[in-house]
Amino acid sequence: MAETDKKRELIIEGAIKRFIHFGINKTTMNEIAEDLSVSKPSLYYYFPDKTSLILGVVERIFRDYFDVLYADLKQSTNIETTLLNIVEIKHRFFLRYYMLHLSNGNPDSSLNSVELKSYLEKMLEKNVQFHEKIFEMAIENKEIAPQEDISKLAELYLSCQSGLTSLCVMHGNKELFPGKKELKIMKEKQISLSKIFIKGLKN
Amino acid sequence: MAETDKKRELIIEGAIKRFIHFGINKTTMNEIAEDLSVSKPSLYYYFPDKTSLILGVVERIFRDYFDVLYADLKQSTNIETTLLNIVEIKHRFFLRYYMLHLSNGNPDSSLNSVELKSYLEKMLEKNVQFHEKIFEMAIENKEIAPQEDISKLAELYLSCQSGLTSLCVMHGNKELFPGKKELKIMKEKQISLSKIFIKGLKN
Repeated sequence: MAETDKKRELIIEGAIKRFIHFGINKTTMNEIAEDLSVSKPSLYYYFPDKTSLILGVVERIFRDYFDVLYADLKQSTNIETTLLNIVEIKHRFFLRYYMLHLSNGNPDSSLNSVELKSYLEKMLEKNVQFHEKIFEMAIENKEIAPQEDISKLAELYLSCQSGLTSLCVMHGNKELFPGKKELKIMKEKQISLSKIFIKGLKN
Repeated sequence: MAETDKKRELIIEGAIKRFIHFGINKTTMNEIAEDLSVSKPSLYYYFPDKTSLILGVVERIFRDYFDVLYADLKQSTNIETTLLNIVEIKHRFFLRYYMLHLSNGNPDSSLNSVELKSYLEKMLEKNVQFHEKIFEMAIENKEIAPQEDISKLAELYLSCQSGLTSLCVMHGNKELFPGKKELKIMKEKQISLSKIFIKGLKN
């Protein structure tokens, strides 16, 4: 990795630490510069404004997320294990990054930039494609019946899953983190739905 | 029906007409009295304030809704038909009463009274019980496998369905009615999920 890239990555890591602790809105560029002992001109050389830094952070998180997902898919033995592992992985990322409010459709105001919105849409699309792949592999392995429209199927599965997530987040206080109880119910529902869903796709 | 009850029902019907046309917040007690040519003292005799009138309206709508659902269940031949009929009925009520914002978890401010909230919670509970009954009947008829926890199952099915609804409502503008396209996608998803779900519960 080139020296500039390394420094860029270090800044992103520092920003993530602040963001997940204090939230995006309450963190200033100054604080990030101080944490990392970099000069402000140096910080602004890599990220000309907070919006671009937020984008860098979000890109990093999704890169990590999909890295974990694809690594898991490589070792996949069957569709049920794969989907249940995704529930686990998603849960882990949710716990780590909930302060960024990436998942509840009601993001911090600072997450509303056009660039970031279009990036999040791309990630949603990538997630659909990832799930299409899972269903395609399961069809090839004759684990589930051939499907008319795999893209629609992946979207349906993901809509249900994110419906279960956002209903649970709404039940908790909107400002606060949903409690342990809500998180447990959410995960249980996501697991139950995945099992019924896969069984419903069999021959 | 006693004369007082009849008059009460007439006022509720008049209020429903105004509410579904102009929304709850934009309707005054005066306008309802004028529409029906009843005196204000007479109106306030039946409904001492707008909150109690709103509660009357909501009770009436849910009574109608569950009447239709239970009548349909009586004629039910199998679980798939029953669940798909419910999607249709729900869609019809949604189209008729969307201006009341009863379904998107973000109701008109006038819907926030304690009494009304507790009524809506009771209706949610009633809906879970109704669906428990559907799944119980399907188990008795050996259409689906015996289930560990029917109440949890009914809740899971309803969470997915309402997740699909609220995601769709959120995609449209929050203030405006979701477009024909969103409604069509919502209904299709609810139908597809119901089919996969039932199949996933078979032996």
